[in-house]
Amino acid sequence: MSRPTLAHQVASAIAQQITDGALKAGEKLPSLREYMRLHGHSKNTVITAYEHLAADGLIEARHGQGFFVIKRVAHTSEEEDSQPYNRALDTIWMMRQQFVRDPGHSHLGEGFPPVEWLMDMRLDKFHRQVVRAGVTTLFRYGTRLGNAGLRARLVQKLADYALPVSPRQLVTTLGANHAMDLIIRRYLNPGDPVLVEDPGYYPLFGKLQLQGARMFGVPREPDGPNLQALEQLIKTHRPRLFFLQSIGHNPTGSDLSPAKAHQLLRIAETYDLLLVENDAMADFKPSSAIKLSALDQLNRTLYVGSFSKSVSAALRVGFIAGSKQRVEELADIKMILHNSGAEYSERTIDVILGEGQFLRHLSRLQDRLRHATARGLDLLDELGAEVFCRPEQSLYLWARFPHIEDANALTRHCLTQGVMLAPGSIFSTQPKSTSPWTRLNVAYLDDPVFCRVIRELR
Amino acid sequence: MSRPTLAHQVASAIAQQITDGALKAGEKLPSLREYMRLHGHSKNTVITAYEHLAADGLIEARHGQGFFVIKRVAHTSEEEDSQPYNRALDTIWMMRQQFVRDPGHSHLGEGFPPVEWLMDMRLDKFHRQVVRAGVTTLFRYGTRLGNAGLRARLVQKLADYALPVSPRQLVTTLGANHAMDLIIRRYLNPGDPVLVEDPGYYPLFGKLQLQGARMFGVPREPDGPNLQALEQLIKTHRPRLFFLQSIGHNPTGSDLSPAKAHQLLRIAETYDLLLVENDAMADFKPSSAIKLSALDQLNRTLYVGSFSKSVSAALRVGFIAGSKQRVEELADIKMILHNSGAEYSERTIDVILGEGQFLRHLSRLQDRLRHATARGLDLLDELGAEVFCRPEQSLYLWARFPHIEDANALTRHCLTQGVMLAPGSIFSTQPKSTSPWTRLNVAYLDDPVFCRVIRELR
Repeated sequence: MSRPTLAHQVASAIAQQITDGALKAGEKLPSLREYMRLHGHSKNTVITAYEHLAADGLIEARHGQGFFVIKRVAHTSEEEDSQPYNRALDTIWMMRQQFVRDPGHSHLGEGFPPVEWLMDMRLDKFHRQVVRAGVTTLFRYGTRLGNAGLRARLVQKLADYALPVSPRQLVTTLGANHAMDLIIRRYLNPGDPVLVEDPGYYPLFGKLQLQGARMFGVPREPDGPNLQALEQLIKTHRPRLFFLQSIGHNPTGSDLSPAKAHQLLRIAETYDLLLVENDAMADFKPSSAIKLSALDQLNRTLYVGSFSKSVSAALRVGFIAGSKQRVEELADIKMILHNSGAEYSERTIDVILGEGQFLRHLSRLQDRLRHATARGLDLLDELGAEVFCRPEQSLYLWARFPHIEDANALTRHCLTQGVMLAPGSIFSTQPKSTSPWTRLNVAYLDDPVFCRVIRELR
Repeated sequence: MSRPTLAHQVASAIAQQITDGALKAGEKLPSLREYMRLHGHSKNTVITAYEHLAADGLIEARHGQGFFVIKRVAHTSEEEDSQPYNRALDTIWMMRQQFVRDPGHSHLGEGFPPVEWLMDMRLDKFHRQVVRAGVTTLFRYGTRLGNAGLRARLVQKLADYALPVSPRQLVTTLGANHAMDLIIRRYLNPGDPVLVEDPGYYPLFGKLQLQGARMFGVPREPDGPNLQALEQLIKTHRPRLFFLQSIGHNPTGSDLSPAKAHQLLRIAETYDLLLVENDAMADFKPSSAIKLSALDQLNRTLYVGSFSKSVSAALRVGFIAGSKQRVEELADIKMILHNSGAEYSERTIDVILGEGQFLRHLSRLQDRLRHATARGLDLLDELGAEVFCRPEQSLYLWARFPHIEDANALTRHCLTQGVMLAPGSIFSTQPKSTSPWTRLNVAYLDDPVFCRVIRELR
């Protein structure tokens, strides 16, 4: 099979953006000159690419005006809004946009640390040891609860968080998102009420919409969820579940205060609420950082962990810790849906966690994050931004800029300059709302184009 | 962390069986002597293991009678039968039993080829090339539709099946089970009717029960589904979807005839039915084997493929081919649920498929299977069994034995002899029904203990 030419690659990247909706019907494409500058391709390459797209009926040249999108893959409109897929369409739309990969764009809106931060844990270094585990790891389904070696390591990891568990209180998953889906499918039926944080993790919103749950947003404050609003929502809607992030909250970067953690658990007890603590950012924080599940010892909490942000998202390994009974039930759902987790990836994570090097990796990762956070806060001050909170170390900062009332407008403007942002509205349970806030990845905050754009707006 | 002793390992394997229900409350454990013989452990190891279990309150010694199970993890009974989890409990129970791994038991009931058949494709051989693909493969989420290299290879693979597709008609999944779950979640709401084959792939039944779909079984015959029954069920219940396996059907090993394939597609057209063709066994058959999706060119079919049985189930890679529109929608569901597939595993499959060696691997696999099938059929004739059909090559044979009306009883009896079977009832949409049939893995059919048991029954 011959490799596609560069022009074909460019054409298919643009076609993808059209299908994904990042480029909409009627929208003008960058001029040849702009595209050359943004992506560093030759003029010939870009012309050929645009010609391919025109030949495919995706764009058209308008005389003297440039190239315009003429076709978009249509969504089904034949079905009613009661279809779960249609209920989730807004989230689908946003996620599609977030997933557009364009090497010319900066990563300011990304949810991940830079790859350079992760590379000292190169997966290939550990491969020999992975293979040494034998044929089951290489060829077979895993067990219901997941790789026993990995679960034994997780027991130690959680003990460091003052969260002692037995291996039977742990089930591995295909990442934190899979973990949340298993919890949703076990505990929520269509029509059931459920609480989330607002702003919050929008891929979670999509999963809840898909299940047909009725989602209510609890406002997130710099020290955790607003407890008055929480109690009011509980009294009105009687939800059984509340999904939240105690530390390194996505998108605000805020941490739950000890006092609020304690009160939150009292409320959960009063109203028989199950708290799902998504701790995907655990490896970015000191092990002493507060965790609801450690306070509660998993009586009315489920703890969700992930290695996507500190080791690799390409492996798809996460886990749930909970009471034995809940973990058994969630393992059943996992078994029904997938037979098992990815034994090969789980074994790889097991080997990596077993390396003395891993602790040094985390320590280096946190050093970098601390420095980037401090630099980011300084820069935001300099740009005249208002920040939601000032964490010591957080992958995200949540900020608003002078004269910006709608971060969507800022996002569209930045996109024309080659900078991709994550505007506040995408993290809202009301995606059509307007938000002045933007989530910024501290690792990329010093992007010169972004800083220039913000300065020009003042 | 110190490694557990052998006695601890034995104890935890037995504890798992108790939790999983393979050993029930009140049931007698094998005697020390039996256990030693079955597993090749020393007497001391087994005694210590039993002592651990007794100390944990899982088993008790009864004077002069041996050891008995005294505790089982209870299921929730507090919730009504309307809970999807409870609807799926029968399937959960069966899958738990199937997942019990006991090295002392033969694999006659397994759904997989022997690991020895797969080992010439040792994953480690390809690791260097996987890594060479760069940092995205190693650390990042994949794209919505999946790894582009792998999808390009799948285009070629499907072209060999006379099923020409574009890369945008393919979305990768975390295995065939994940593929079916995506389809269920896109096209089935709670309460919707759906058709499956009976007998059929029971992990599919579990997924449908979990979604709350109403499942109707179309009887499977040696040449495919019973079309009269199919049409009757369509007229009565108006389902939109029918899940089936054209070739190497699990559990019967039967293949769809060309005539039936043609008629089936006519029926699907008449009643606007979407056919989901699960082709997990494709690599075990000649590429010329009939496929509904090739006849129909994916107009009203979705084609589900997997590498779990021909490369490795530990990687969790499968895919769906369909119309562009359907694939876009399914990719959306995948994105909402998991953000992306496992880029690392997908790249590994891509590298393996790219090796010239892979075709030789498949050819060797099919040779082995042909020989094992012929041997298996001879042996079943010799044992006086009735076989459902006589395929040239199939991982499964579906057989019944003289004087056996209930294969569950045979299964229980064989289990005491260290042989694990897959009785017909687990493949039925009515799991409480009685079936005289048993699914046999041709690779393990010549198990001497099994043959002795059957001969003794005559």
